[in-house]
Amino acid sequence: MPTLDEALAEIHDEMADHIDRGRVADYIPQLGKVDPARFGIAVVTNDNGVFTIGDADETFSIQSISKVFTLTLALGEVGDSLWKRVGREPSGNAFNSIVQLEQEGGIPRNPFINAGAIVVSDILLAGHEPRETIGEILRFLRFLTEDDTIAIDEAVAASERATGFRNFALANYMKSFGNLRHPPEMALGVYFHHCAIAMSCRQLALAGRFLAHDGINPATGHSVIARQKARRINALMLTCGHYDGSGEFAFQVGIPGKSGVGGGILGIVPGQATLAVWSPGLNENGNSKLGTLALGKLAKMMNWSIFAP
Amino acid sequence: MPTLDEALAEIHDEMADHIDRGRVADYIPQLGKVDPARFGIAVVTNDNGVFTIGDADETFSIQSISKVFTLTLALGEVGDSLWKRVGREPSGNAFNSIVQLEQEGGIPRNPFINAGAIVVSDILLAGHEPRETIGEILRFLRFLTEDDTIAIDEAVAASERATGFRNFALANYMKSFGNLRHPPEMALGVYFHHCAIAMSCRQLALAGRFLAHDGINPATGHSVIARQKARRINALMLTCGHYDGSGEFAFQVGIPGKSGVGGGILGIVPGQATLAVWSPGLNENGNSKLGTLALGKLAKMMNWSIFAP
Amino acid sequence: MPTLDEALAEIHDEMADHIDRGRVADYIPQLGKVDPARFGIAVVTNDNGVFTIGDADETFSIQSISKVFTLTLALGEVGDSLWKRVGREPSGNAFNSIVQLEQEGGIPRNPFINAGAIVVSDILLAGHEPRETIGEILRFLRFLTEDDTIAIDEAVAASERATGFRNFALANYMKSFGNLRHPPEMALGVYFHHCAIAMSCRQLALAGRFLAHDGINPATGHSVIARQKARRINALMLTCGHYDGSGEFAFQVGIPGKSGVGGGILGIVPGQATLAVWSPGLNENGNSKLGTLALGKLAKMMNWSIFAP
Amino acid sequence: MPTLDEALAEIHDEMADHIDRGRVADYIPQLGKVDPARFGIAVVTNDNGVFTIGDADETFSIQSISKVFTLTLALGEVGDSLWKRVGREPSGNAFNSIVQLEQEGGIPRNPFINAGAIVVSDILLAGHEPRETIGEILRFLRFLTEDDTIAIDEAVAASERATGFRNFALANYMKSFGNLRHPPEMALGVYFHHCAIAMSCRQLALAGRFLAHDGINPATGHSVIARQKARRINALMLTCGHYDGSGEFAFQVGIPGKSGVGGGILGIVPGQATLAVWSPGLNENGNSKLGTLALGKLAKMMNWSIFAP
Repeated sequence: MPTLDEALAEIHDEMADHIDRGRVADYIPQLGKVDPARFGIAVVTNDNGVFTIGDADETFSIQSISKVFTLTLALGEVGDSLWKRVGREPSGNAFNSIVQLEQEGGIPRNPFINAGAIVVSDILLAGHEPRETIGEILRFLRFLTEDDTIAIDEAVAASERATGFRNFALANYMKSFGNLRHPPEMALGVYFHHCAIAMSCRQLALAGRFLAHDGINPATGHSVIARQKARRINALMLTCGHYDGSGEFAFQVGIPGKSGVGGGILGIVPGQATLAVWSPGLNENGNSKLGTLALGKLAKMMNWSIFAP
Repeated sequence: MPTLDEALAEIHDEMADHIDRGRVADYIPQLGKVDPARFGIAVVTNDNGVFTIGDADETFSIQSISKVFTLTLALGEVGDSLWKRVGREPSGNAFNSIVQLEQEGGIPRNPFINAGAIVVSDILLAGHEPRETIGEILRFLRFLTEDDTIAIDEAVAASERATGFRNFALANYMKSFGNLRHPPEMALGVYFHHCAIAMSCRQLALAGRFLAHDGINPATGHSVIARQKARRINALMLTCGHYDGSGEFAFQVGIPGKSGVGGGILGIVPGQATLAVWSPGLNENGNSKLGTLALGKLAKMMNWSIFAP
Repeated sequence: MPTLDEALAEIHDEMADHIDRGRVADYIPQLGKVDPARFGIAVVTNDNGVFTIGDADETFSIQSISKVFTLTLALGEVGDSLWKRVGREPSGNAFNSIVQLEQEGGIPRNPFINAGAIVVSDILLAGHEPRETIGEILRFLRFLTEDDTIAIDEAVAASERATGFRNFALANYMKSFGNLRHPPEMALGVYFHHCAIAMSCRQLALAGRFLAHDGINPATGHSVIARQKARRINALMLTCGHYDGSGEFAFQVGIPGKSGVGGGILGIVPGQATLAVWSPGLNENGNSKLGTLALGKLAKMMNWSIFAP
Repeated sequence: MPTLDEALAEIHDEMADHIDRGRVADYIPQLGKVDPARFGIAVVTNDNGVFTIGDADETFSIQSISKVFTLTLALGEVGDSLWKRVGREPSGNAFNSIVQLEQEGGIPRNPFINAGAIVVSDILLAGHEPRETIGEILRFLRFLTEDDTIAIDEAVAASERATGFRNFALANYMKSFGNLRHPPEMALGVYFHHCAIAMSCRQLALAGRFLAHDGINPATGHSVIARQKARRINALMLTCGHYDGSGEFAFQVGIPGKSGVGGGILGIVPGQATLAVWSPGLNENGNSKLGTLALGKLAKMMNWSIFAP
């Protein structure tokens, strides 16, 4: 088996040769400006070693990866009562989110599709102002990474709001079923901002450590969330973390992961490592094209799989 | 941590007290005759120890659990070309199977929904007569278990055929898209028979060992299927093994599993154990109600989870 | 054949005896306050005779009946280019409106479902302020009826806005496809107000005369809209005028009609009469329960049917 | 206004010039062999005058137009109890037939989509052998036209059976809900044969006369079906007669009509005329492309519209 540094170097070289790097998301204009040639990986091992290659310290818009952290916060605050308002099944189809909202009475299928994450934002609001909740989310990420530089890219947040008609549609639709407690604009205020958080691969991999260690941050020994909840967040990442490409990611890569349309993916190898990759071009399911390939290759080279003995 | 014998005894007692045991499937009349009070578990550990409790040696109709073994056979025969005709994503909705067949050009979402398993049967036919293919499936199960008593319950097979109008609908629908090579009746002939195989919990747990050991039968050292394929079958069981309750099973139990409407569930703990449970009453998703609870409790007591360090 | 007065009297008596009058719409709180016992009919014949019974001069919220008049205005203003943004097929299913918006790229199926009428409002805006467009719609109805008392019930309009999350969802959804030219709030401002127009049966029957006379107001001889357009509006009323109960209304009553959740229905008997009925209780398709029965009975008694020789 | 002969001549010339004649149905191989240049119209007026042009005496496969006549027969035999097993609403979407079968418990939306017509065939069987029911349908058409030469094209019937996997799927699906009384193969035996009936435009126009005359054959004075039922069949033709192009046909042509994938359309002008057109090329909704244009032009020239005064 190669060393991690060897594996990362080989993957970096291989990915650099790829002509077809997927398509950078452009429905949020700010995201469309990112250079598709950027590529980085960071790995944090169980002894807190950090291995990186490429643009691993460049920040990018983490987008839906943020949903892992808002879910963690919300589960910590309201516990399993959250599951009365959000399901935990794969959605099965890109377009189904809104169909299934109709069929299932305004209850989104899982916390990682947009509708589900908007409900999680509504739960985190808990009567506060959006900026307070946004502040809480940022503090949580800074605490997990011990890095106070993590911030929101306000240009991205504004761009999301200005073009987010589909999310306005989802939020109003759920509100019509009574599954938002606050005005749709408030829940969306939180949602647009947490999707616009900018982080580097290194920061992401550090932030995800508690998921590889049954809820405990291995660097500090602090419990971030209860053991069973950490495992269940991993389960949700595996079954629902890549939209309608979740089955494919489980099949090809074999570890829990969560993607964002900014081109990032956070991956968890329980007990062994936390991975973050960034390559802005997306595949047809809206997940990082080279990022998925890179994680698949890394997992294979290091023999990381939750389905292996 | 309790011993396995202690854990099984505690679970057996707890389940015996349950009044609401779910509803026995009755759309196949033969299945409706089974006593809902039956309950058994078998565990085979990585050192080939076998632990059982209750009706673990009573045979029952394995139904959809058989799809794990037909998929294994078909992957061994045609390799990854199988995935041109079957997807590997959760279906997302009970009813979606036929809707998605329409939207996705007759390609079923995964090999564990009925439509997908019918395609797998069609692949296994490969120009032979149904009885030959059925014989091959039986031989495979007898080989895996070293038990030549495994057989088909012909009354169940006949009952499935007589009432299987929905499966006739699915098969004809896929045939209209050209995704069956043989006449629908032939693929269904194989399908109805492999669903009607009768096995005990002990036999099932023995048959599943190769999935907990990267494709190798640990008792004989024989390779049943390539390492990567074994892992991927586990991934499919996790994301798609319990119909529209797959996310829930991953969340609650945390290991790959495959259920059947006969009330059985096969569970895989990579590197550690293979589990089989039988309780005929089903929950609203068509999975064994007490079987799911029992596996969840057993996994928790033994600290078995693919999402744990 | 009875005289019209005899027919109306018989129907009025029969309807008065009905215990089950359907359910008054209450999702808009203001509508829920209406007395379900109210009942009125007005008939305007081709010689401009007006026949009424019951509460025919009481105003009620015309709701979706207003869509006939906004469509007429928009067709007059932009002609057949309107059909690039709105279809003319029955939607086939109550819930499909939003599914089909997805599948059909944000183009609503027809101008009488909510999504379609919101696009028509957007077309009528044409860069103006909502209050100007609302004024234009009111002037059109006052012109058609020669009755300057027609007005908007502002309490209903405010109630619609406060509870109209589903319409906000539809508007934002279409905006995400680029099928609204103005901000969703502006199109909805027009939409909520024209649905909140209050009219009596007499006023409605007078307003609809041009549809029974190939586009010409028979009282004044003025052309309201071109002949072919008038016929086509009738065709749309027949195929799409009663949501997912349109086929049933065509089957049972046999004339073009448009219902509103306020309990009103406008019916057109080309060349012979215009009918308006009001009974606030609705059937399961959201159409006036007794209103439908009354129009069916009236059409049968007077031998009015567009499907008869 | 032109004479009928003048109108037919003008339309015939105009249609002869069309380069894009649509696409001949080829999913039934026998239909794909038909020359797309064929074109004919027949009109039977209320005084039993017959006007024809082009290939009006050439027989073609009437396909779904036959559903008008099987519905008429079934309504005559079982009356309104038929509507417990078949709905009367437009389906709203090509693919919805099978989705809606699922959602609506195996009850097809209307008798003119395939699923609905298969139920009508099942009703006509009434315990008999398929060949007896097929004989009854032929006798009915021969009686209506006073023409004993009408027959089934057995090559088409065989071709439909050999390729009709989708119809087998629909029939089995409905059978699984209990909405077929006979084995699916029997209902389909009737269905495939009545779709394969060969008739000319002249024969079709003669056969449809009772629908333009409140149920009475104007040539003989015989009552074919009760007045109200005839009107309701017209209503169903208007709302459901052209699949998901029914709204469009009502909008463009303005009369009840029923199309078939053989390229024929039957049109009814109550009290005035019965029309039949044949042009084998189809538009995107599966209705005769030039046939629709020709009927639209003819209706406009003769001022025929059920939406006109």
